Amino acid sequence: MEEKTVYWDHDSGSIIFIEQTALPAEYRTVSCKSVERLAEAIRRLEVRGAPALGVAGAFGVALAAKLHDDSNMDSFLRLVREDADYLNSTRPTAVNLSWGINRTYESIKNAASPEEAAETALRVAEEIAAEDEMMCRKIGETGAKFLPDECTVLTHCNAGALACYTWGTALGVIRSAVEAGKNVSVISCETRPLNQGSRLTAWELSRDNIPVKTITDSSAAFLMKRGEIDAVVVGADRITHDAVFNKIGTYMHAVCAKHHEIPFYVAAPTSTFDATLSEKDVVVEQRDRNELAKCGDRLLMPDSVDAINYAFDSTPVELVTAIFTEKGAVRPPFSVDEILQRKVGI
Amino acid sequence: MEEKTVYWDHDSGSIIFIEQTALPAEYRTVSCKSVERLAEAIRRLEVRGAPALGVAGAFGVALAAKLHDDSNMDSFLRLVREDADYLNSTRPTAVNLSWGINRTYESIKNAASPEEAAETALRVAEEIAAEDEMMCRKIGETGAKFLPDECTVLTHCNAGALACYTWGTALGVIRSAVEAGKNVSVISCETRPLNQGSRLTAWELSRDNIPVKTITDSSAAFLMKRGEIDAVVVGADRITHDAVFNKIGTYMHAVCAKHHEIPFYVAAPTSTFDATLSEKDVVVEQRDRNELAKCGDRLLMPDSVDAINYAFDSTPVELVTAIFTEKGAVRPPFSVDEILQRKVGI
Repeated sequence: MEEKTVYWDHDSGSIIFIEQTALPAEYRTVSCKSVERLAEAIRRLEVRGAPALGVAGAFGVALAAKLHDDSNMDSFLRLVREDADYLNSTRPTAVNLSWGINRTYESIKNAASPEEAAETALRVAEEIAAEDEMMCRKIGETGAKFLPDECTVLTHCNAGALACYTWGTALGVIRSAVEAGKNVSVISCETRPLNQGSRLTAWELSRDNIPVKTITDSSAAFLMKRGEIDAVVVGADRITHDAVFNKIGTYMHAVCAKHHEIPFYVAAPTSTFDATLSEKDVVVEQRDRNELAKCGDRLLMPDSVDAINYAFDSTPVELVTAIFTEKGAVRPPFSVDEILQRKVGI
Repeated sequence: MEEKTVYWDHDSGSIIFIEQTALPAEYRTVSCKSVERLAEAIRRLEVRGAPALGVAGAFGVALAAKLHDDSNMDSFLRLVREDADYLNSTRPTAVNLSWGINRTYESIKNAASPEEAAETALRVAEEIAAEDEMMCRKIGETGAKFLPDECTVLTHCNAGALACYTWGTALGVIRSAVEAGKNVSVISCETRPLNQGSRLTAWELSRDNIPVKTITDSSAAFLMKRGEIDAVVVGADRITHDAVFNKIGTYMHAVCAKHHEIPFYVAAPTSTFDATLSEKDVVVEQRDRNELAKCGDRLLMPDSVDAINYAFDSTPVELVTAIFTEKGAVRPPFSVDEILQRKVGI
C-alpha cells in the first residue's frame, strides 16, 4: 500500500491517518491537529493494530511538543507529559502505544527549548515509523522465501499495512513474495465477529492489486480439503515459549492445516515474544456479547442468549511450521531465548 | 418447542407458520389463507428447512383443495394442480417440498367431490406432519442415549424444530436427552454467513429453557481444546455412501473434533441417504457474494472483492462417530444399503 496508516504531514504540521472504521464503505484520511482528536481516533479504533498504535503514540507526543510553547522547560514538559498520559489512557492494555509514547517523551527530556524538543520528538517518531517499516520488510523477505512461486495463501484477521506503519507482517510476507516476482493469491477469512479480514485485509490487498477473495472463517478447512490452499500465514499478538496467541480462529486453521499437511506460518517481530511465559499463564480476553448479537442495524441473536466471545486463541508451537521474524525464521522445536539473542536483523 | 413451525388451524381453516425471517428480533406467526401467500413465504424463507417445506407443501395442497369448489372434478383437479405447480416452483431444488406436494395431490385424484378431496388432502398433510414429528422423535431417542448425563454439545446451523414440523433432528437429539433427564448445555455456532445458529437455534433452545450460548464458528476448536465441548451433533442435507453433506463449517468441526478426540454425531432421517452417490458426484452449491458482503445496513467487504461462498461442505464418514436415524444408529464402517433396508422404525 502506498499510503501509510499514520504519518506526519510536514506541509500542514499535522498527523494524517487512514480512518479504518469507515472502511471498506469509504476510504478517507483524517488530518489531525490536536491531541484530543488523536486520542478519539485511537479510542474509536479509527487507528488500530499494535505496531500502528506505537507509531501513532509517538506522533502524538511530537504533536503535543509542537503545540505547547511555554518558554519554561519544566512547565512545557509537564504539559507534554499530561498529553502523553492522556493519549496513553485511551487503550491502557496496548503495550506498543505506551512504548511509542514513552520512547518519544524520553527523547525530549533534556531538550534546551520547546522548539528543539518538538524537532527531536518528530525525528524520533519518524525513526519509530521507519523502524517499523524496516522490521516488516525484513519479516516479509524472510517469509517470502518459504512461499512457492505459484501459490494461494490463507490469512486470518488483518496483520497488514493497516495494523502497522505500512507493509504489514503476515501481509508483508505476501507483499514481499509478490515483489520478488511470485504469483500469490490470497484467501482472506472474514474474521468474525469484527470482520477485519473482509473489511481491512481484502481492502488493502485489492488496493495493491494482489488477487484476494473472502470466505467465511468456517470455509477454510473445506478449501484445504479441495486443495485450494497452499499455505497459511497469520500474525501474532503474543508468543510464549510454547504457544502463539492470535485472533480467535487461528488455532482452528492450525489444526486443519496439520490435518491436510499444509504449512502453517506465523509472521511477527521478536518484540512479540515473551520467553518467560507459558501458554497457561496468559489470560485470554473475553469481549462483549454484542459483537456477535448485532451487525449494523441487524439483530443476530436473541437478547436472552449469552455469547462466549474470546478475542484470541492459542496455538501450540507443535502446530506451527515456522515463525518469520525480523531476525530470520525459526522452526520447531523453538528456543525463544535463541531467537531473542540473535544479533542479525535491525 | 410447543408451537409447530407450520400447521393447519382448524378454527380459521388456514395455515399458520412462524415467520422465521423476523427472528430473533420478533416472534410472530402468520395466518395464511391463500396459496399465493404461502408461495411468498417459501420464496422469502419465512418457512425454511427441508422437512418443514415438505409439510408446508402438503398443507398448501390442502388449502388449494379447500379454496376451489368447482363441481366438475376434472376442472377442480386442474385448478388444484396449477396451485401445486405454482407452490413447487418457489424453490425448485427442495426435494421435500415437491415430495410433500405430490404425495398430497396424489391422494385426492380419485376423490368423489371437492369436499371429499379437501378432507382427504388435509388428512394426508396432517399425516405427513405427524410422521415428521415421529421421525424426529425416533432420531432424538436414538441419539440421546449417546450423550453423557452431563454434557455440553456443540451444534452448527439450525437442524431444529424450525427446520421441521417440530422437535428437530440434531436439536431433537438434545431435546430427547433433556426429556430423558440429562443435563445438556448447548454451544450454538453462529453459522455464517446467514447466522441460522445465532438467529434460530439460539432462539428455539432458549424458548425451551435449554441452556445455550452462541459463539463465532471459529471459536469451536479453541473451546474443544479448553475441554468445554463433550460432543458435536449436527444435521445433514445429504449423505452419500462415503460422506455427509451439511452446512459449510461442518467439516471443520469434524476435523477439530477428531483432533481433540471428541465424538462427532450426525442426526438425519434415512430419506437423507443416497447410497448410489459418492462424495465426488455431488456438486456443492455456491451462493452469492452478497451474503458475505453485507449484513443489515453494514458493508463488510469492498465492492471490488469477490467471495468464495460454498453453502455446504462434505465430511468423509471416517470422521463421523455415528449417524442417528429413525431406524437406529449406525457407526462406521457404514453400509448405507444396510441402513436403508432396516425394517425397524416408522
